[in-house]
Amino acid sequence: MNLTEYLVARRAAVDAELERLAPAADVRPTTIHRAMRHSLFAGGKRIRPILLWAAAEAVSGEAPGAVTPACSLELVHTYSLIHDDLPALDNDDFRRGVPTCHKVFGEAMAILAGDALLTRAFQVLAEADSIPHDRRVALIAELAAAAGTIDGMIGGQVEDLEAEGKPLDADRLHYIHRSKTGALLRASVVMGGIYAGADERASAGLSEYGRRIGLAFQIVDDILDVTADSATLGKTAGKDVEQGKATFPALYGLEESRRQAREHSNAAVAAIEPLGLNAIRLREIAELVISRSS
Amino acid sequence: MNLTEYLVARRAAVDAELERLAPAADVRPTTIHRAMRHSLFAGGKRIRPILLWAAAEAVSGEAPGAVTPACSLELVHTYSLIHDDLPALDNDDFRRGVPTCHKVFGEAMAILAGDALLTRAFQVLAEADSIPHDRRVALIAELAAAAGTIDGMIGGQVEDLEAEGKPLDADRLHYIHRSKTGALLRASVVMGGIYAGADERASAGLSEYGRRIGLAFQIVDDILDVTADSATLGKTAGKDVEQGKATFPALYGLEESRRQAREHSNAAVAAIEPLGLNAIRLREIAELVISRSS
Repeated sequence: MNLTEYLVARRAAVDAELERLAPAADVRPTTIHRAMRHSLFAGGKRIRPILLWAAAEAVSGEAPGAVTPACSLELVHTYSLIHDDLPALDNDDFRRGVPTCHKVFGEAMAILAGDALLTRAFQVLAEADSIPHDRRVALIAELAAAAGTIDGMIGGQVEDLEAEGKPLDADRLHYIHRSKTGALLRASVVMGGIYAGADERASAGLSEYGRRIGLAFQIVDDILDVTADSATLGKTAGKDVEQGKATFPALYGLEESRRQAREHSNAAVAAIEPLGLNAIRLREIAELVISRSS
Repeated sequence: MNLTEYLVARRAAVDAELERLAPAADVRPTTIHRAMRHSLFAGGKRIRPILLWAAAEAVSGEAPGAVTPACSLELVHTYSLIHDDLPALDNDDFRRGVPTCHKVFGEAMAILAGDALLTRAFQVLAEADSIPHDRRVALIAELAAAAGTIDGMIGGQVEDLEAEGKPLDADRLHYIHRSKTGALLRASVVMGGIYAGADERASAGLSEYGRRIGLAFQIVDDILDVTADSATLGKTAGKDVEQGKATFPALYGLEESRRQAREHSNAAVAAIEPLGLNAIRLREIAELVISRSS
């Protein structure tokens, strides 16, 4: 199985599990369940779940049960997109080429749908009966920290909002990149290690891998906003520049940004060298993160 | 110690623990931490934390460590108030006599502060090291279910929003009362039992007690909205009627509503009879819920 086949197969398995974990559209109150599903099944690439799964495989070989904790990441990621797209925040009408949640269901329902996806993420982890209690607790703690305010996703979003229209600030840019997208990507990999019972050395390698690909991923995101067109991206291109957002190309230029992304990708691969052959998918993903075009 | 002294002492202890658990106002990003603290320390009565604590005491006598899981309930409750008060939802400018989060910090920050409090609630439970892992998992599962969409807090909020301006509907009114406020109040009591290791019989009694006082509490809330003034309530009185909200007095009249609240309070007390002397505070609280004036 080559990487493309692997990603297609894993994505299908994640979608099937999300279908099972998301409240059914005909369960009361139906409106919010339809709103949650609208955003959850709007064409996401399932990068975070696949990272958790691949990290678990890197530690223990096969890890089919990893699909359940993997989905908790997609629930959190989708909640963050719904809230980020709200008029009070980024005010986006489209996401992945699909109308955003509040455009279809209204602002109130979009706020609550985001809340519900976040809540469901923790419920899914707490109720994952096949995972030992101590690991479930560690998974929840890791996810909550990555999604939170201190060096976590919400913290990054706050600084991103506050940076708009202000002069570029390298310190703030690095904080935003590390926190807003990086924290959850790093947590995905770390949670794969927790699920699979990684020892201290493996955990440290996975953590560094996750940190590095998180940074590479966000730098490439910034680059694509400048170089790609909206149709390829599935969202409005050029929006960062238009909104005066802090980005890597704005601060360092395109060429230097590309060099830094490559450097982080290489460092990610180096960090998981001790994991050996089972880490093949993580190595391939580190390459894909910087070669992707959307 | 009489009930008033008990409530004052417990509330002070909860406030001190929340002070410890809430991110410090000078930690980066400071804006969101100030926003979280603004609403968290805006004069809440800490009813849910005190219920958890009193339920734990009903099972095991002293339960000083219950203060930490107790605070997770106040974090969730506060997040729900911040989001409910948003312009897209109930559009309230004041809460407990204090300007609401979005009035002070803006809508974007209020949305994120709510998200952050919800996230922090689960983190606090996951990191409560003195509680065995299996109980931590059960506490998180219970809290997530009560805060969620299916017969939970968000579900009740959704139906409440959808009921506005529509003809009164007894089925929907009961769903809203059971879910919007009732689910978290019931969970408070159930979580106290989980924390203290309640056996099956005690758990069943606590669950029924929680369900009944949840209903009594909400019926009294509806009654006070009609009969009390804004200064006493600390929020705008008469708002339910003005917004065409489904309430008990609107459906059943004041006298019958009072009778039902009393009936639920009595049933709550009956449900915890097997717990004996240690349940004294729960009995007193069941009485207080229906005699309160704000």
